[in-house]
Amino acid sequence: MRQNQFQIRVNWGDTDKAGIVYYPNYFKWFDIAGHQFFRSVGLSPAKLAAEQQIILPLLDARCTFEKPLYYDDIITIQTQVAEINRKTIKLHHEVYRGDTRTGYGYELRGWVKQEEGKIFSVPIPDEVKEILQKEGPGEFSQINPWLNA
Amino acid sequence: MRQNQFQIRVNWGDTDKAGIVYYPNYFKWFDIAGHQFFRSVGLSPAKLAAEQQIILPLLDARCTFEKPLYYDDIITIQTQVAEINRKTIKLHHEVYRGDTRTGYGYELRGWVKQEEGKIFSVPIPDEVKEILQKEGPGEFSQINPWLNA
Amino acid sequence: MRQNQFQIRVNWGDTDKAGIVYYPNYFKWFDIAGHQFFRSVGLSPAKLAAEQQIILPLLDARCTFEKPLYYDDIITIQTQVAEINRKTIKLHHEVYRGDTRTGYGYELRGWVKQEEGKIFSVPIPDEVKEILQKEGPGEFSQINPWLNA
Amino acid sequence: MRQNQFQIRVNWGDTDKAGIVYYPNYFKWFDIAGHQFFRSVGLSPAKLAAEQQIILPLLDARCTFEKPLYYDDIITIQTQVAEINRKTIKLHHEVYRGDTRTGYGYELRGWVKQEEGKIFSVPIPDEVKEILQKEGPGEFSQINPWLNA
Repeated sequence: MRQNQFQIRVNWGDTDKAGIVYYPNYFKWFDIAGHQFFRSVGLSPAKLAAEQQIILPLLDARCTFEKPLYYDDIITIQTQVAEINRKTIKLHHEVYRGDTRTGYGYELRGWVKQEEGKIFSVPIPDEVKEILQKEGPGEFSQINPWLNA
Repeated sequence: MRQNQFQIRVNWGDTDKAGIVYYPNYFKWFDIAGHQFFRSVGLSPAKLAAEQQIILPLLDARCTFEKPLYYDDIITIQTQVAEINRKTIKLHHEVYRGDTRTGYGYELRGWVKQEEGKIFSVPIPDEVKEILQKEGPGEFSQINPWLNA
Repeated sequence: MRQNQFQIRVNWGDTDKAGIVYYPNYFKWFDIAGHQFFRSVGLSPAKLAAEQQIILPLLDARCTFEKPLYYDDIITIQTQVAEINRKTIKLHHEVYRGDTRTGYGYELRGWVKQEEGKIFSVPIPDEVKEILQKEGPGEFSQINPWLNA
Repeated sequence: MRQNQFQIRVNWGDTDKAGIVYYPNYFKWFDIAGHQFFRSVGLSPAKLAAEQQIILPLLDARCTFEKPLYYDDIITIQTQVAEINRKTIKLHHEVYRGDTRTGYGYELRGWVKQEEGKIFSVPIPDEVKEILQKEGPGEFSQINPWLNA
């Protein structure tokens, strides 16, 4: 199924007094990588919200931490669709520093309509499912920022 | 003019690899203390937004950092109205660990209406000015959380 | 086994443009509640680090999101020891707004020594296990900040 | 004097319930742009800390907010050395969305030695001053990540 990758640097503010990345930042990166994934397949969350009042809130998220990450590390987040259900999508994320995986996990996101201040889940349209089921990177994957390390 | 104080603890995630508070957190605390100030004088930002479509965006903010803050420090943020202008309010904030001031600064906030996705500044109503000009803590200052250190 | 609870307010900066809490904040609250739990049973992370070079890094974390949280909501985070293993501790966290649970999850933390810039897991001392296995709130639970809502 | 520029995208978590960027994020970007600036002139903060125990803590920071920023905006942060003093450096930062400046401000950073858990300011070496006084972008400015928008 569709996949994407995305590079960022571990910033000073991402670390804590032990000198290691403060773990909620992994979920911040998962969120950024998830949004970047949707952009890369032509399903920009900004457009989904503006044109269809669709938001993609989290239902479940998990991360397993394997190795510490440090300030200045350049990391690659690899994202892949793991499941497409009737009203939910599961994205699998892996974080690498070079060849070493430092953590992995998933986000389960709902396909949710926001109308008049209320939110309720709705079925994922077939054309969206088709986009997500294709193999390889999306046609807009070139929007991804890449570090020239 | 009106004042308020507010205590919080420096959390693990507020520090960086030098073991010192990551400085943008001072502005996060200023923001929290500012909202808490408005609650303490009966001008809850949540009510202002829901009932009058008024938000209080930042126009200018500054902080001078005097001493490092560390994990687990319990800090008191003292907030006071410094200026009331036609469409703006300036709050002065000071951060103390015990008797030692570790930093101080201000927030200049607009009185801004949000309508149909647009925002524009509007004059501060006289009854709001009167509330802000009074001396001492507000009548809802007891809503403030206090640490039993 | 030992438990603790802790109240905080959802701040303005915790929300996102959908008006709902940005989900990585749940993990920030889990982290704060975890540290607060250790303080409440007399195992202050600051003391563990200073006196024994022990830190408690995350090995695994998960959160299931049940209901949206909004700006100004006052939430209670209930924390309980779920497992005590040879070198790891699992804390279960539940987030409530009033009687409604809005999310729950866990943190699996290692008992890790930090020496000369290296970190390695070590067995949890028996006296620590005994503290964690007791029932009810810890003897220092009164250090917790409580909102007078 | 030396300058640098740096592009990033406004992420979902950077916004608040008014749909506008939460203002402490400007200071997070200033901090990231400041570190990126030092990297771009060959004064990587990671190397300064590891090889010379030099850190660059904030003494003063200010930001003036001119226009709202929204989710998905791509912003350019332009950084320039504004002052080089005996023990401090002032960086000026401007944030642009396309041709529109949305905010600007500065960071005043100390040149500080961290030894045996203590920190104290020291004079900036002449060779560092020379590097900072040169015109134009630094020789490592190509390490900057650029979005292919």
